[in-house]
Parts: sequence; structure tokens; C-alpha cells
Amino acid sequence: MTEVLSVTERSRLRRLHQRGTFDRATINAILDAQPMCSVGYVIDGKPYVTPTLQWREGDHVYWHGSSASRAIRQSRGQEVCLTVAILDGFVMARSGFHHSVNSRAVMLFGRAEPVLENQKEARLTAFIEGLWPGRAAALRPMQPQELKATTLLSLKIAEGSAKVRSGGPVDDEEDYALPIWAGVIPVTRGVGRPEPDPRNLAGLEPPEHVTEFRWCE
Amino acid sequence: MTEVLSVTERSRLRRLHQRGTFDRATINAILDAQPMCSVGYVIDGKPYVTPTLQWREGDHVYWHGSSASRAIRQSRGQEVCLTVAILDGFVMARSGFHHSVNSRAVMLFGRAEPVLENQKEARLTAFIEGLWPGRAAALRPMQPQELKATTLLSLKIAEGSAKVRSGGPVDDEEDYALPIWAGVIPVTRGVGRPEPDPRNLAGLEPPEHVTEFRWCE
Repeated sequence: MTEVLSVTERSRLRRLHQRGTFDRATINAILDAQPMCSVGYVIDGKPYVTPTLQWREGDHVYWHGSSASRAIRQSRGQEVCLTVAILDGFVMARSGFHHSVNSRAVMLFGRAEPVLENQKEARLTAFIEGLWPGRAAALRPMQPQELKATTLLSLKIAEGSAKVRSGGPVDDEEDYALPIWAGVIPVTRGVGRPEPDPRNLAGLEPPEHVTEFRWCE
Repeated sequence: MTEVLSVTERSRLRRLHQRGTFDRATINAILDAQPMCSVGYVIDGKPYVTPTLQWREGDHVYWHGSSASRAIRQSRGQEVCLTVAILDGFVMARSGFHHSVNSRAVMLFGRAEPVLENQKEARLTAFIEGLWPGRAAALRPMQPQELKATTLLSLKIAEGSAKVRSGGPVDDEEDYALPIWAGVIPVTRGVGRPEPDPRNLAGLEPPEHVTEFRWCE
């Protein structure tokens, strides 16, 4: 039997499907699932958005770049908006209007504070270890001039929201009678087979942090 | 035999690996591969970034939203920065400094112009047809109040750049002698099995635009 929802129930359902929240567990889970982010900043009153990688440690998100880059120079000490968005599926409704996407997104606001010189190595190590446990210790050590050429920025997770949409389409009641296929096409992600550098030393096998690396978002 | 590159050759190689371009074919291919985008705009001097879906027709990109939404109201007629970024792989080098990601990104600048009322239906139809050929005609027709509640914004592809990084790591010459696994972990995407809405009419099979939908970016 098909359950028929009242208008009130449908609008409640819509709210449940898509809601903004500052629940820290939700925000953390989204940040931790997807390193790709977009950092928005302002130069001469105009908006700029730079895609980069972020990582989280406790109450802060971090990102880095060449100290000479425009994105880093112009957002250092300034107000930024950092977003992470994960597309989970296409929601196919019976009308164009009710088509949607299932997604998880975080939007954070605040001032991008530069990480102190004596903290940079520890933060970059945490970044690498967060993705590939054990890799940092296996690498050629960081050199002072590399750290100097790199600026790390941080943003305290204090203002912003997470927005999550999941589940199937929510159509206008009268449209459920139409012979139109509705549902969700899920979007999936994964990693392919690691491609070794042709210049790897002979006989070098990929370590566990490579072979076990998963990209599940 | 391992080819040894000079410093000049290596910096040339680095430039080849990552370069900014306004080549329209490259920009179009990236926009057409990934509907998810980030739109940056400014309110009271502060940056905002909203994830949304974009589609391209000729020399314009379009996006849409509720006419009442902050993101739409505040970017309508204003300067925006629209970016699309696709993560293709993790580039694992022999030092942390030379780790990178393979990616394709587009950054566009300009004024977000509202689409005229009498053009909205055609643009939204193109959006749906671009993703699922044949679906627009199968849907319950758009209603005037739905079109009224929706604002479409457009941006002429005139200012901006594409940036593409591909290929393996480029390490410092002396680091190639180290027994550190280097290479690329490719990131893949796809679609899962379509999940029909439990309220679909009995016996309704998914159409070809659903079963044949691919997400290859």
C-alpha cells in the first residue's frame, strides 16, 4: 500500500531531507571524508575561489600553498569562506522542479590565521599521516627552505554550517500518479590500482598505506 | 635505463605537469565533465562560497536556485567567481614537499546576469537534457509558479583559466636514489545501481537515460 502524506507531512519530510546544522560531529565527518575544498576570499572587493586540499585537527581546518601564491598571500589574516561539498547522488523526481542532489556540504567562515613557523612541520606531518598513516616517517625529511616556501593557514571551526540531503525524491502529491520513473542514481567513488613511478628502485613494493588506501568519502 | 633530467628539464617538466590556460576546449571539457561547482560572491566585503550545480551552453555557464535564497539574491548582478575542480589522483613523491594531486580545475570571473523570464524554461530544459537526454519531455511540465520561484544566473566564459595537473611525481634529482615508493593513486568515480522510488507505479522500468547514465568526469 502506498502511504499518502499530507502537505504538512511532506514539508516536514522535505526539512528532514535537507537541513542546516552546526552539529560538530556532522561537520567533522564531512571535513574528514573529503580533503578537496574551496577557499573563498576577497581582493579589492571582488570574490575569488581557490580549490585546494584541507585537513582537520581538532577544532581547526588547515590548508597550505606556496608562500608566493596569490591565494595564500591574499587570504592570509583575512576573512575567508571554506567549503567542502560531496555529491552523493542524483535525485530524479517526477517534475523538473523537484529534481535534486543528495549531498553533504560544510561551509565555514572566519579569519585565516597563518600557522607559526615552529608549528608548520608538525601540521604538515599530520596532513600526510591523516591520509597515509606511516608515510611521513618514510619520506625524505622536510628541508628548512621547503618549510619557508610553504605557508599554512588555519581556520577555527566556529562559524558555519553543514547541510546534508539524502533519500529519495519528494514530489507533489498529484504527481505520484504519473508513470514517470523516479528514484536516485547514487554517485560512487574509489581508487584505482596504484601506478608506480617508472623511476622507483627495482623491487620496491608499494607500502600498506598505498595498497590499503581507500577513498570512501 | 633511467633518464636523468637536468634542473632546467625538470622545471620545464613541472610546468608541463601544471599549467594555466584559457584554451576554450580545455575549459569546456572540464565544465562539461563535472556539474558540481562553487560560486563565490561578496556580501558586505566578506566572501561567501556556495556549492551548486552548473551547466554550460555555448559561451555561458548557468546555475539556479530558489529566488529567495541568499546565495542567489546576493550574487544576482554582482561579480562572482565560479570554480569547478575534479580530483584525479594523489601524487606520491619521495618528499612531502613534492606530493601533489592530479586535478582539473576551471576558475571563471565575471558578473552573474539573471536569465530573462522567457528564457528560463528553455535553459532548465537544456540543463536536464544535458544530464539525461530525453528526460525533460517525460516529466510533468514546469508550472509558471515553479519558474517564478526559480532564479537562473549566467556567466559569460570570458575571464578565467583552466589548470590541469597530470602524470607522476617530479622529485628532486638526488631523492630518486631513495628506497621510497613513489607513484600515483588514481581516484575513480562512477554511478551505483539506480534506486527506484518505492512509490513508482507498479511495473515501471527505469528509462535508458537512467540505466545508461555514466559519471566519468
